[in-house]
Amino acid sequence: MQSILILGAGKSAGYLIDYLSDWSNRSGTQLHIADLHTAHLEHLTTQSERIHLHTAQLSDKGVLQTLIEGKNIVVSMLPAFMHPIVAEICLEKGVNMATASYESEEMRALAKDVEAKGLIFLNECGLDPGLDHMSAMRIIHGLQAKGHQITGFYSYCGGLVAKACLSENPWKYKFSWNPRNVVLAGQSTAKYLENKRVKLVPYHRLFAESTRHEINGEWYDGYPNRDSLSYAKTYGIEGVSTLVRGTLRHEGYCSAWNFLVQLGLTDDSVAFPVKPGMTYREFLEAFLPERGRSAEEKMTTVSGYSDTIAEKIKWLGLLSNEPVSAPSGTPASILQQLLEKRWELLPNDRDLVVMQHRIESVSEQGKPQIVLSSLQIEGVDNKHTAMAKTVGLPLAIGVRMMAEGKVTQHGLNVPMQPEWYNEILDELEKRFQIVFVEQIQESEQG
Amino acid sequence: MQSILILGAGKSAGYLIDYLSDWSNRSGTQLHIADLHTAHLEHLTTQSERIHLHTAQLSDKGVLQTLIEGKNIVVSMLPAFMHPIVAEICLEKGVNMATASYESEEMRALAKDVEAKGLIFLNECGLDPGLDHMSAMRIIHGLQAKGHQITGFYSYCGGLVAKACLSENPWKYKFSWNPRNVVLAGQSTAKYLENKRVKLVPYHRLFAESTRHEINGEWYDGYPNRDSLSYAKTYGIEGVSTLVRGTLRHEGYCSAWNFLVQLGLTDDSVAFPVKPGMTYREFLEAFLPERGRSAEEKMTTVSGYSDTIAEKIKWLGLLSNEPVSAPSGTPASILQQLLEKRWELLPNDRDLVVMQHRIESVSEQGKPQIVLSSLQIEGVDNKHTAMAKTVGLPLAIGVRMMAEGKVTQHGLNVPMQPEWYNEILDELEKRFQIVFVEQIQESEQG
Repeated sequence: MQSILILGAGKSAGYLIDYLSDWSNRSGTQLHIADLHTAHLEHLTTQSERIHLHTAQLSDKGVLQTLIEGKNIVVSMLPAFMHPIVAEICLEKGVNMATASYESEEMRALAKDVEAKGLIFLNECGLDPGLDHMSAMRIIHGLQAKGHQITGFYSYCGGLVAKACLSENPWKYKFSWNPRNVVLAGQSTAKYLENKRVKLVPYHRLFAESTRHEINGEWYDGYPNRDSLSYAKTYGIEGVSTLVRGTLRHEGYCSAWNFLVQLGLTDDSVAFPVKPGMTYREFLEAFLPERGRSAEEKMTTVSGYSDTIAEKIKWLGLLSNEPVSAPSGTPASILQQLLEKRWELLPNDRDLVVMQHRIESVSEQGKPQIVLSSLQIEGVDNKHTAMAKTVGLPLAIGVRMMAEGKVTQHGLNVPMQPEWYNEILDELEKRFQIVFVEQIQESEQG
Repeated sequence: MQSILILGAGKSAGYLIDYLSDWSNRSGTQLHIADLHTAHLEHLTTQSERIHLHTAQLSDKGVLQTLIEGKNIVVSMLPAFMHPIVAEICLEKGVNMATASYESEEMRALAKDVEAKGLIFLNECGLDPGLDHMSAMRIIHGLQAKGHQITGFYSYCGGLVAKACLSENPWKYKFSWNPRNVVLAGQSTAKYLENKRVKLVPYHRLFAESTRHEINGEWYDGYPNRDSLSYAKTYGIEGVSTLVRGTLRHEGYCSAWNFLVQLGLTDDSVAFPVKPGMTYREFLEAFLPERGRSAEEKMTTVSGYSDTIAEKIKWLGLLSNEPVSAPSGTPASILQQLLEKRWELLPNDRDLVVMQHRIESVSEQGKPQIVLSSLQIEGVDNKHTAMAKTVGLPLAIGVRMMAEGKVTQHGLNVPMQPEWYNEILDELEKRFQIVFVEQIQESEQG
């Protein structure tokens, strides 16, 4: 009898756990779920004797070793830095593994050994990375099969909140996923391809040079992700002229976030000398040039300033005399503590996942064509988020396929082949209404 | 009989070696000099049998151990990252040590053991750090002895080139020291104190917000160094309102360098995808927003652009069709290779060291006073630089004092106490014409 272990049972694992619990019952698979907190899952064990909870400290390697021993597949929902530790134990004990995170260098270093042992380590099988690859590859492979040459590839994704839940929030943003990743987003220089030219955009220009994107009648800001260049090879579209993968925010976010970047509030490289009783206004003033009397006046002298940005800064509480809650830390971590209060997803908030690909190609007859493929999913509340759904379900389906022996390719896997993406996308569409809507624009120009 | 070992005998060690050779002859001390290249020093061994050359690979720890064994003092002129390795061997073998580099965290970790063994490890005994501390502390201690309260401290230093040697160079800059340090300068967020307020300036605003400084009728740009805050305690001037230590460049340099920073050409965090045959113009274009047809036109759309900056960019060769000489590397390293050609110190070039302190104080009677203390030294040619002189001689004198047993304080030392600075500054002034010129401004305002 097969047995699967899920490491990490937080809010973001909800849909994954539901899917695999249901399937384990039907298939007769043992499902083990381990986390420091498991009380919220006790109802599952009363429903089925095949489900086992383990209340455990997962940062402890010895604990991980004991948990992984004897399992067939380990699904890691732990923070990404933990994956290599889990992977090493899995390799040692001959256990398959699956994550929704990027295939890291450490993971790649294990590739040969994973293959030699006949194991499958599946990575990048969530939303972004995950659904982005699968939906794009299905279109690309389809076009290539018809003889089209791909000339341009743009893919943007955002983990946002439905606008209806943001009426009083001028940033039009709340955290639906890891706050630290949002605060540090873009700190590695972005690389992409535009009109056959390699482009590098350093962090301090990234948000200032955001682009505008219309999806289903709504406007979004977009900025490029760290390294799009490598995807020409990964996606098999080497002849492409433009290739950019990026992140979406509601319109107006990027120029205001850029202002925080310009000031230095997102700096994670140095300690801020916090003094007892220091207020958020004093914290902000440390980054303002000494031009003007008040913080308000000094802000106006910083490049990129506008009144609407000043309103957003004020709304965050950065002009308030409230004391800074962090006793120490980098500017970024002090800012993050404030944002976690202001950008908290409240019980009735509905998050929003938006993704759009724009794939430009030329037919064998020289006709240009553009495929727009868009996904838009709203969450139910702050426990049933679109983010947890679109990350958790692709991974859960991937794990089920591994357990059912449906995958033939041993070694490291990312779901870019039909063998993976057809079954995952079909099930997401039919059973969970996670549907990409396609629009095709053709022109007579050659 | 005492014996001293100098590790590293490059151009920058010339004055140090001359001083210690001369002194070793007169004092009967053995002087060992080790480097991969020592041929240029063979004349010294014919002059004196107390001088010994060692042609050795100093990156090899075993070689270092053999060289250090049995010496009394080791002077490390090696790159700063080598100092901790040398320090550990010195500690193990009970040998004193001296450098012109910042006292690092690794060095501080050895402090107790150094003291317990009755050794002296002298650091920060060059120009900057070194002469800056010594000259400032002599003034500060003098003012404090008269009952003055220090209210403001500004100290700037630049390793430059005499303007007369720069008539055809619009940047007014050439390398008189480590090029890599110049290209990466300022990449750590600057922290300083201004009007009792802590100020943090991130890298991308550092050169844009440079300040203007007049020294002996010449104008310079200045930007703050990484962490000035800690010097309130180190210098014993805790009550100070403004405290900033910074770097000087000839006027006009900072706004042009800022343009390279804004573009991302000084980025050392990512690899640039160099293609065979790629030109410097193509390298530059990778950083330019796709607004405009030519690189020249695109540059005008970048924040901070001006015609004089465009002229400097062109002069460097960044608009040329010359192929990039680096086969790979970060943007910063590719830029550095180009700059090393354009900013090379030629045989007859005279470098220039400029330093100025501005020390504001209030007397016991409440009278404000400003002391300006300035140093300006020109080199002779590209082998006898002001830089090598002002780094090497303070260190050489410090080493002589150690050898003569003139220092009583065991453990880690920086030359901020009268015991060190009086003798070093006096000898530099009397014997080598390295003189700080003081100006005192008093006002009746209280």
